[in-house]
Amino acid sequence: MNNEKKLQKAHVISVTVENKSGVLAKIAGLFSARGYNIDSLCVAETEDPTVSLITIVVKGDEKILEQIYKQLNKLINVIKVQDFTNGETIERELALIKVNVANSSSRHEIMQLVNIFRAKIVDVGKKSLTIEIVGGNAKIKAIIELLKSFGIKEIVRTGKIAISREFGK
Amino acid sequence: MNNEKKLQKAHVISVTVENKSGVLAKIAGLFSARGYNIDSLCVAETEDPTVSLITIVVKGDEKILEQIYKQLNKLINVIKVQDFTNGETIERELALIKVNVANSSSRHEIMQLVNIFRAKIVDVGKKSLTIEIVGGNAKIKAIIELLKSFGIKEIVRTGKIAISREFGK
Repeated sequence: MNNEKKLQKAHVISVTVENKSGVLAKIAGLFSARGYNIDSLCVAETEDPTVSLITIVVKGDEKILEQIYKQLNKLINVIKVQDFTNGETIERELALIKVNVANSSSRHEIMQLVNIFRAKIVDVGKKSLTIEIVGGNAKIKAIIELLKSFGIKEIVRTGKIAISREFGK
Repeated sequence: MNNEKKLQKAHVISVTVENKSGVLAKIAGLFSARGYNIDSLCVAETEDPTVSLITIVVKGDEKILEQIYKQLNKLINVIKVQDFTNGETIERELALIKVNVANSSSRHEIMQLVNIFRAKIVDVGKKSLTIEIVGGNAKIKAIIELLKSFGIKEIVRTGKIAISREFGK
């Protein structure tokens, strides 16, 4: 059980790449060729439009991951590979959650949760509310758990992004 | 010029898939095989851990995109394909921006921008501030443009996610 948990540690990897067609497919392929499932992945432009940054969260065997690092570094379109797993980082994720609203009392309860979590209501339907929330894993997980009792209609998550911490530096 | 602009319209596509190794590589491959560059892509779990949702933003020729839709729908691990391009949607993106702070006057100016954009400071270094911001394309673009004059050290973006709007429904 403990061993299994160790193997299942989540790794956050950030890969700076040239913004070219095919690079993402190649990188995703490196993981899947080893049976590695990607928990989440974000790719977007940086301040330089010719450069994109990919943030990947994976769980799995450390040895295989080390091989993947080496191969990532060998890809011609890869500029930099950073492992944020053990460093001092800020990790955030964005989620949009559409939740059922059966009546005004449940609307009230949901709005209380939104306040507690410093989330935001971004859309109001006759029978639903859509909530925008930003946070780490634990926060997002907690609000999803609490909203489940109302009935979640839809969740869209970005997956995690990470940036190194400068506090004290 | 006008034609070019039409061809360059951004499409937001949401693909619900089985959470299995290799699915992302296959989907990214469909785009790159046609020389289609993905502007941004997010993939993360949904409330059902066996199901993931991929949000893809691409620009390009409509006819080729139609072919890609058809092929996406044919993939066995694809559960649903939604095109959010012309619908009523809420679109959001999260960015973490690390900006240089040369002195206390620029720190003050940056903090004013953070307030105006309803952004958040999530880390403070001796020579930098890290800002968390959520918004649509225009908002993120605007704050990046304004922060450039201070010197941006790092930007990490999630890419866009989208959810259908229920307002008035």
